Amino acid sequence: MSMTLCKSVLITGSSRGLGLQLLKEMAKSSNRPSTIIATARNPAGSTALQKLSKTYPGVHIVTLDVDNQKSIRIAQEEVRSIVGEKGLNCLINNAAIGQSMDINTITPEAMMKHFQVNTVSPLFVTKAFLSLLQTAAAQSTGMGIQRAVIINISSIRGSITCNWDEGANFKSYAYRTSKAALNMVTRCLAADLGSDGILCMALHPGWVRTDMGGPDADLSEEESVSGMLTVLSQLTDKDHGVFKDYRGNNLPW
Amino acid sequence: MSMTLCKSVLITGSSRGLGLQLLKEMAKSSNRPSTIIATARNPAGSTALQKLSKTYPGVHIVTLDVDNQKSIRIAQEEVRSIVGEKGLNCLINNAAIGQSMDINTITPEAMMKHFQVNTVSPLFVTKAFLSLLQTAAAQSTGMGIQRAVIINISSIRGSITCNWDEGANFKSYAYRTSKAALNMVTRCLAADLGSDGILCMALHPGWVRTDMGGPDADLSEEESVSGMLTVLSQLTDKDHGVFKDYRGNNLPW
Repeated sequence: MSMTLCKSVLITGSSRGLGLQLLKEMAKSSNRPSTIIATARNPAGSTALQKLSKTYPGVHIVTLDVDNQKSIRIAQEEVRSIVGEKGLNCLINNAAIGQSMDINTITPEAMMKHFQVNTVSPLFVTKAFLSLLQTAAAQSTGMGIQRAVIINISSIRGSITCNWDEGANFKSYAYRTSKAALNMVTRCLAADLGSDGILCMALHPGWVRTDMGGPDADLSEEESVSGMLTVLSQLTDKDHGVFKDYRGNNLPW
Repeated sequence: MSMTLCKSVLITGSSRGLGLQLLKEMAKSSNRPSTIIATARNPAGSTALQKLSKTYPGVHIVTLDVDNQKSIRIAQEEVRSIVGEKGLNCLINNAAIGQSMDINTITPEAMMKHFQVNTVSPLFVTKAFLSLLQTAAAQSTGMGIQRAVIINISSIRGSITCNWDEGANFKSYAYRTSKAALNMVTRCLAADLGSDGILCMALHPGWVRTDMGGPDADLSEEESVSGMLTVLSQLTDKDHGVFKDYRGNNLPW
């Protein structure tokens, strides 16, 4: 990982799973961002997160319930005071929920809840931190992690194209629709923010052995995060508005 | 239009716009389905709908608020008694809302409302009528309008691929995400219901001069509906799980 040129990064949902692992790998890297902001709904409840912020300097914990507009506003002010005039280089919208529910068990409530947390929240978290991303973007040129990027952690389960034949074996109407919708949000943001020099993309972390992915998943957290950080460090304008996996391969929408 | 082999069709949101026009063209066709069920949230409020049901025989008006689980259950029973043992050949999920809101004006409430009406409702309306579609499917072979089909009226605005360059000029985070999510629902349904012989597809009606499309749109209601009915009448297994426009061209997700 070479994220030397990135001064600041913010990761949502960083109290466990991939968010925590992303935070850990970034924090212990030699050429790490000087400011790492770890947000979680209830940071006090994560021993791992607390320990990490004490072990590594420049790791700031900010309380953020991505599903709560008031919490977003408070976090916005706190992050503004942390990053100051340099702004924010990298926003990683990672917080998400995922339940597998098939055609028989799916409920309207589950559809709405997944959409709220996995689609609407990343959009409004992004809007809250947009002026900080614009501040960072205004101080640089080109496109990539050294300037300003928005990474929406999506999933191949959100690829409509891939939801066919064997790819359709995983049944989750709520999770799949919320991630397809997040991909559309990513594309809308990319179309709107490219002229500001803010790169926007959707990133599939692979199928990872987390609480969400379960014990049978393909990848360890380390393998997924190592791949994702390599992708992040190598972003260029070619990656703007696209959907990639943790190995850097493009995915169809 | 040749829909002779289709005995019954149900159209949601048929009190105005494309739904009403679809209903009108079907009802007056010489080789029309014998049973046409027109649903609307408030059928009494549509003079056009009332007039149509008096002019043409076999047009049944059923009250259905697609956003209300109780209304769906009541409509389900009513439709069951109308179609009887023959079941339902064709369900057209047409009811939808659409507002253009850009990155500055979009609200969480607008996102949720569009998702509820444009994505969640078609799924639960489909679930409610599924046993009637399965009944019809069990009485035939092959795939197409003569057996059982679910048509989700989508939009090219819901194509993530097409939301780029000039295609991104129309700004509506809420409408776009809800239609992309509907496309995912369509694909999930197609994966689940193909083995029952139920064809599922997403259909883009074109940009039409309706209340939603506005006066500057490309097509008259007649042009759009004429094209869509031709597409419907020619459906085969090749159209299962795909996204087509009113001219029969495949669209990317």
